[in-house]
Amino acid sequence: MITAKARAVDGPDKSFRVAEIKRRDLDSHDVLIEIKYAGICHSDIHTAHGEWGPVNYPLVPGHEIAGVVTDVGPNVSKYKVGDRVGVGCMVGSCGECENCRNGEEQYCLKGNIPTYAGVDQYGEPTQGGYSTHIVVEEDFVLRIPDHIELDVAAPLLCAGITTYSPLKHWGAGPGKKVAVVGMGGLGHMAVKIAHAMGAEVTVLSQTLNKREDGLRFGADHYYATNDPETFNKLAGHFDLIINTVSANIDINAYFSLLTLDGTLVIVGAPGEPLSVQVFALSSRRRSFAASMIGGIRQTQEMLDFCAQHDIVPEIEVISADQIDEAYERVLSSDVKYRFVIDISTM
Amino acid sequence: MITAKARAVDGPDKSFRVAEIKRRDLDSHDVLIEIKYAGICHSDIHTAHGEWGPVNYPLVPGHEIAGVVTDVGPNVSKYKVGDRVGVGCMVGSCGECENCRNGEEQYCLKGNIPTYAGVDQYGEPTQGGYSTHIVVEEDFVLRIPDHIELDVAAPLLCAGITTYSPLKHWGAGPGKKVAVVGMGGLGHMAVKIAHAMGAEVTVLSQTLNKREDGLRFGADHYYATNDPETFNKLAGHFDLIINTVSANIDINAYFSLLTLDGTLVIVGAPGEPLSVQVFALSSRRRSFAASMIGGIRQTQEMLDFCAQHDIVPEIEVISADQIDEAYERVLSSDVKYRFVIDISTM
Repeated sequence: MITAKARAVDGPDKSFRVAEIKRRDLDSHDVLIEIKYAGICHSDIHTAHGEWGPVNYPLVPGHEIAGVVTDVGPNVSKYKVGDRVGVGCMVGSCGECENCRNGEEQYCLKGNIPTYAGVDQYGEPTQGGYSTHIVVEEDFVLRIPDHIELDVAAPLLCAGITTYSPLKHWGAGPGKKVAVVGMGGLGHMAVKIAHAMGAEVTVLSQTLNKREDGLRFGADHYYATNDPETFNKLAGHFDLIINTVSANIDINAYFSLLTLDGTLVIVGAPGEPLSVQVFALSSRRRSFAASMIGGIRQTQEMLDFCAQHDIVPEIEVISADQIDEAYERVLSSDVKYRFVIDISTM
Repeated sequence: MITAKARAVDGPDKSFRVAEIKRRDLDSHDVLIEIKYAGICHSDIHTAHGEWGPVNYPLVPGHEIAGVVTDVGPNVSKYKVGDRVGVGCMVGSCGECENCRNGEEQYCLKGNIPTYAGVDQYGEPTQGGYSTHIVVEEDFVLRIPDHIELDVAAPLLCAGITTYSPLKHWGAGPGKKVAVVGMGGLGHMAVKIAHAMGAEVTVLSQTLNKREDGLRFGADHYYATNDPETFNKLAGHFDLIINTVSANIDINAYFSLLTLDGTLVIVGAPGEPLSVQVFALSSRRRSFAASMIGGIRQTQEMLDFCAQHDIVPEIEVISADQIDEAYERVLSSDVKYRFVIDISTM
């Protein structure tokens, strides 16, 4: 067994504390990664606070992981010691179902193994990236292109793929009008990626506070949703809307912004059900969809795409002692645009 | 002005009465149709009862119209006296917007002109097919193939196109698993059309009461939704679900029956908003869509397709005096599967 230093929470209302966790000895296809940076995703907060169902505490969150390979199992063929690698939201899947065979492991019919708060193939609870080391099967390890520094690489493993995947799937590109709702950790990545794909990008944010940033990230237009005129002006305008806002919003108002055959995709995860007026869809044959991260193959494609287009997230690096404070700041939207923990402070 | 005999209602709670209505003199591109049969659509009932917003009574419903051309305006080129023709849910549109130019007049950006309860291009209220004659611009008149009798042709103009269009749009065909929710006027057409398109068709009906009919219409499988086991057995099974049920149902249970990237399309029009659990969509990147009828070009395509595949609705022909009774029977689901008014009894 390998001992790793970590930061863990013991309950929904608890602060993070120093912890030691065990990582399994390397199995034949396992890779040992020394983690350098771990991003803080809103999902970490939901899970740590027990808002997404019961959790086996102590919990070590973190599924935006970037580091370096320090050991490999005997049959590992894809990675060697010294390789710069990443791990995202999942560390395993059945490998045999239709979706796994098609490279859509995130939709594994038996359920993928989440990087934390899950149970691995050995029956052990999984623990995430707020720690110094992690052991992952090579098929769930990503290669970080040389161009991309490890600190900014980390958030690509969740925020990057979560937005890249639907943009790709629903054809964002030249001639397409894409709106991004929300300018947080996911939203700012969606803007950069959609722009690099060649789409005409509009940000729909509550206020114009982050307008300059949005335009710098590649948005062509920026509107405030607290101005009702926005919804009149942009009615029937977009081919694709990527909604990154988790909070319950009037989704029908956003449907009205879609053109004929347009699609609104939710990539956040509202806890409350959304109230959908069917006429808001039928009046232009619109679609309402939702997607989760992306497959391993597509995650590698996203990393390579970001390297090629010089796309990285905007981050604020924090020490391990600042995790609680960072959670507070994420909850009050006081982050531009992603916190990344420097694991050397662990 | 042309005088037509009709059946009209004077208010939400009123019975139908004999009426005389005026049809405009033929404009240069107008066609005068002597109506032979008119189907009774659930929309007629919603509108007559004032459930879809305020109505200018007296109202003559009916948008499943089949008849014969008896006169044409001076510049009509598509039809001549004696032609067997139909009229569906719309009798006009702007003709200039992007959607009209693409043959999707039902989604006209200025709003199409509905066959009844609308206002035509001359500012006059439109009145529907429960009448002996109607005047319609030739571009909104359909040709009924010789193979199809006029009584069974009528319901194709709404029930037929409303189901054909989404089946075509979302690719029902060989290798696709299609479910049809509800076995009423729309549902039984969806079964016949999806089967003719080559899809594997499953009916999801409340009970097994209409099972024999469903299999005869071309369904490969038939399940009762009042049996909870149905939802376990068919989880993740369908590429496409056509939901023809207007009543508020647990839509999330139906999403769970879709496979990866599957789509559920609503073609009924629930008055109440539907409560959507985002996870029911995101767990398999599913889509929720809704569509309305089809364009004129596609409506003609549907009529020709039905002629080619010998598809007609199952109908019960009634006299004009039976309209009130027929409405009652539709509301209690006591119809197999569409009432059609014999206009000669007007």
